[in-house]
Amino acid sequence: MTTATQAWTRRHILSLMDFSVAELDMILQTAASFREVLFRKMKKVPALQGQVVTNMFFEPSTRTRSSFELAAKRLSADTMNFAPGSSSLSKGETILDTAKTYLAMGTDIMVIRHKQSGVPQAIAAEMDRINSGVSVLNAGDGLHAHPSQALLDLFTICRVVDPEKPRCEVVKGKKIAIVGDVIHSRVARSNIWSLTAAGAEVHLAAPPTLLPELFRELAVGTNRKLFVHWQIDEAIADADFVMTLRLQHERMTDHLLPSLREYHRGFGITAERLKSCKPEVKILHPGPVNRGVELASEIMDHPALSLVSEQVTNGVAVRMALLYLIGSSKANQYSHS
Amino acid sequence: MTTATQAWTRRHILSLMDFSVAELDMILQTAASFREVLFRKMKKVPALQGQVVTNMFFEPSTRTRSSFELAAKRLSADTMNFAPGSSSLSKGETILDTAKTYLAMGTDIMVIRHKQSGVPQAIAAEMDRINSGVSVLNAGDGLHAHPSQALLDLFTICRVVDPEKPRCEVVKGKKIAIVGDVIHSRVARSNIWSLTAAGAEVHLAAPPTLLPELFRELAVGTNRKLFVHWQIDEAIADADFVMTLRLQHERMTDHLLPSLREYHRGFGITAERLKSCKPEVKILHPGPVNRGVELASEIMDHPALSLVSEQVTNGVAVRMALLYLIGSSKANQYSHS
Amino acid sequence: MTTATQAWTRRHILSLMDFSVAELDMILQTAASFREVLFRKMKKVPALQGQVVTNMFFEPSTRTRSSFELAAKRLSADTMNFAPGSSSLSKGETILDTAKTYLAMGTDIMVIRHKQSGVPQAIAAEMDRINSGVSVLNAGDGLHAHPSQALLDLFTICRVVDPEKPRCEVVKGKKIAIVGDVIHSRVARSNIWSLTAAGAEVHLAAPPTLLPELFRELAVGTNRKLFVHWQIDEAIADADFVMTLRLQHERMTDHLLPSLREYHRGFGITAERLKSCKPEVKILHPGPVNRGVELASEIMDHPALSLVSEQVTNGVAVRMALLYLIGSSKANQYSHS
Repeated sequence: MTTATQAWTRRHILSLMDFSVAELDMILQTAASFREVLFRKMKKVPALQGQVVTNMFFEPSTRTRSSFELAAKRLSADTMNFAPGSSSLSKGETILDTAKTYLAMGTDIMVIRHKQSGVPQAIAAEMDRINSGVSVLNAGDGLHAHPSQALLDLFTICRVVDPEKPRCEVVKGKKIAIVGDVIHSRVARSNIWSLTAAGAEVHLAAPPTLLPELFRELAVGTNRKLFVHWQIDEAIADADFVMTLRLQHERMTDHLLPSLREYHRGFGITAERLKSCKPEVKILHPGPVNRGVELASEIMDHPALSLVSEQVTNGVAVRMALLYLIGSSKANQYSHS
Repeated sequence: MTTATQAWTRRHILSLMDFSVAELDMILQTAASFREVLFRKMKKVPALQGQVVTNMFFEPSTRTRSSFELAAKRLSADTMNFAPGSSSLSKGETILDTAKTYLAMGTDIMVIRHKQSGVPQAIAAEMDRINSGVSVLNAGDGLHAHPSQALLDLFTICRVVDPEKPRCEVVKGKKIAIVGDVIHSRVARSNIWSLTAAGAEVHLAAPPTLLPELFRELAVGTNRKLFVHWQIDEAIADADFVMTLRLQHERMTDHLLPSLREYHRGFGITAERLKSCKPEVKILHPGPVNRGVELASEIMDHPALSLVSEQVTNGVAVRMALLYLIGSSKANQYSHS
Repeated sequence: MTTATQAWTRRHILSLMDFSVAELDMILQTAASFREVLFRKMKKVPALQGQVVTNMFFEPSTRTRSSFELAAKRLSADTMNFAPGSSSLSKGETILDTAKTYLAMGTDIMVIRHKQSGVPQAIAAEMDRINSGVSVLNAGDGLHAHPSQALLDLFTICRVVDPEKPRCEVVKGKKIAIVGDVIHSRVARSNIWSLTAAGAEVHLAAPPTLLPELFRELAVGTNRKLFVHWQIDEAIADADFVMTLRLQHERMTDHLLPSLREYHRGFGITAERLKSCKPEVKILHPGPVNRGVELASEIMDHPALSLVSEQVTNGVAVRMALLYLIGSSKANQYSHS
């Protein structure tokens, strides 16, 4: 782990758009070592003892917040939880002032989720402007990015190919379909960047209302392999992995989809449909799953097909890796000023 | 403690219906040793360090959740709290999928409360089906069971008779009245099983709307001593202990009771009424108490009569014992798969 | 620190009305030593390991609760949070019974906030009556007192004058203006007691609707230096420190103020207005700030003028000091009974 830390240079993790293969590999390698810790009887390491990780989830979340909180605790950090409900925000305080308050209390790493794209970036910029030394970890901002989810997806995919040494190289040339509500998905956006950077072929599939042609543009002028499909068949033919996205019920009231049943008929993953994939195909989903919509129940519960539980387990390991990489290289600089 | 652990065989604690005297004694003995820890300046032991206890209180609770959380912390476990309000449940995820998510994050013990009877059992069955190795501790399900409450009541009663060595034997033949809303009480149901198993004579007392004759059937064909009374007098005459149950205000709107005052007149515990009990009678109540309804204020505050505070203190010790017994014998097996 | 602890005699911290200079100095000295801990990489000390600090915030709060929670964690205490929303209170339990429940679970220190003045005092009195040995720390009660805030303000002011050795003596004769909604401010009330005890000249300034003449009476017959102004100019002329108070929006609907703009014109702190102060004047605000109302944004963000972040940082150190002083001298006595 020493090598990884010495080479790590980013203070914040906000988006995966410009992550290099070397950086992704560093994360995968660090996550692999932490994943081993999770399977010991004693699942803790003292790496961040005495440091403070503050979860600022302006948009409520149980699953991702629990995963980050557990990751922080297993690194022996102290955690604070900011609860927007009973907070100063309702008293007219700006988000930047709220962030500065938690900085002044001694926060070393801020894990931030906000329904508006760009909030973690804005806080990170302000933290740098005042030379705080604090790190910001984007836990999902609007429709923009959800880097820790995409990194746990990459880690999970790499581990299928080589459980001993997960690294970008092993997914080179693999065909990965991302099926569902791409346009509203920060998970999809972050996965597009990391998976194509790793050399995978990414095939997006959704009805046109949920997947504008514009997505092709993301790869123009690069050597990223990205394809857009408005039918599922081509997208999943010979696929090595099928990543399904959560369908929000709001999409129906927004008139972007006729009905959940209609969606399932066109894009739901069923045993029948998987016959066109590679025989060893695996299914991912960021959860929570609408059974019978994105995935047939039989697929979700099939231990040889579904990586859903594996993703959750790997999520803790990957988040430990991210907190460790950005956290162990420095203490809260601001405090020293 | 070594002996107790070696002999402990249950993975889950869901109901006390089939608990043997040997098992109850093991819990009482372990709780007694943890109760001593609570009175040290340093109230922690490293027994569950690195293990994760997840509190899944689908039905909100401050008191029982705090007690379990403190018990877990004093065993040095890490704790996660599942908050149904802002959770995936509202996003259409099934309860079993939610439980599997917390399993996949690395939970070793799930402490589950749900307003529907049977939910902890269903989760435990699923956890076993997939060979997860996870333990489920029922923290109250519907009208069914609340084992940790009944065990802390048993522990409290035994300690009155023999503070040095609380064990079932010491309550053999003691007369214990359980007064109040028996039909809606999971506390009463669990106490019936544990107290009669320990050899106590249990006398239930309530108006017929809150205590159907059917309760007699629970002891038919066994040597359990269980009696049903629709007047309080016989139930508490010569009683060694009077356990009062909380009266929910909903019972009035359900037309099961004319008024709180009426209830207090018929079944409330007063100094006058206690004259018919044994001189050394003690009063229990699971809390929170409606002063002047189940108990006259003077009784609740009487240090020689009321065991209410003692029950709360013992609750932490008993929950430490339960977490310790089911937790220390195994690590999260599922994680190893 | 040994000397400080040996001399500390108060079990509770409820109000600063009768605090001596010696007691204030003890707190300042202890806070100074803990402030150093905050700037280490390893920000924890084992002082309260195994003890339980229960945050009972009947009135919701993110900022103060987080500060107390972090202070407790950095002293290695275990923390419990009482959440009034889902609590027994809504089930008809009295506040004293709720407090006794947390006592019986093993609480050593209760940190209490309530919108009604006097609740922490009532709980402290009951805890003493039953010889519990538990300490109560008032985290803000109604319009009455907010001692930890006033102590962090005093600490912050003293550190400006002498960062090495903050003590009351250094603020003797300093002119400190407290500007804003004095009548509704528990922060102002507590600051009046501590700052005048330390020997500072305190000048209150607000429109008459927010500052009755009665406030002069607080100093009558004492040698405390306290002045009331209904215009800001005299209050801040040659001031060494200007402490601004938060203006609640409710004041407008209560018809105590015409508008926020009007208030800002009359009592808002601007660069122009500060010209009449001492050249080295510093600005305090308990937060959260209404930018452009109590303070012009340029003042709040001015690193040489604003002590707002410094106050937040010092808040953790001062709260560590308070918990340490009242907590390290005794264990939960009640438990031993």
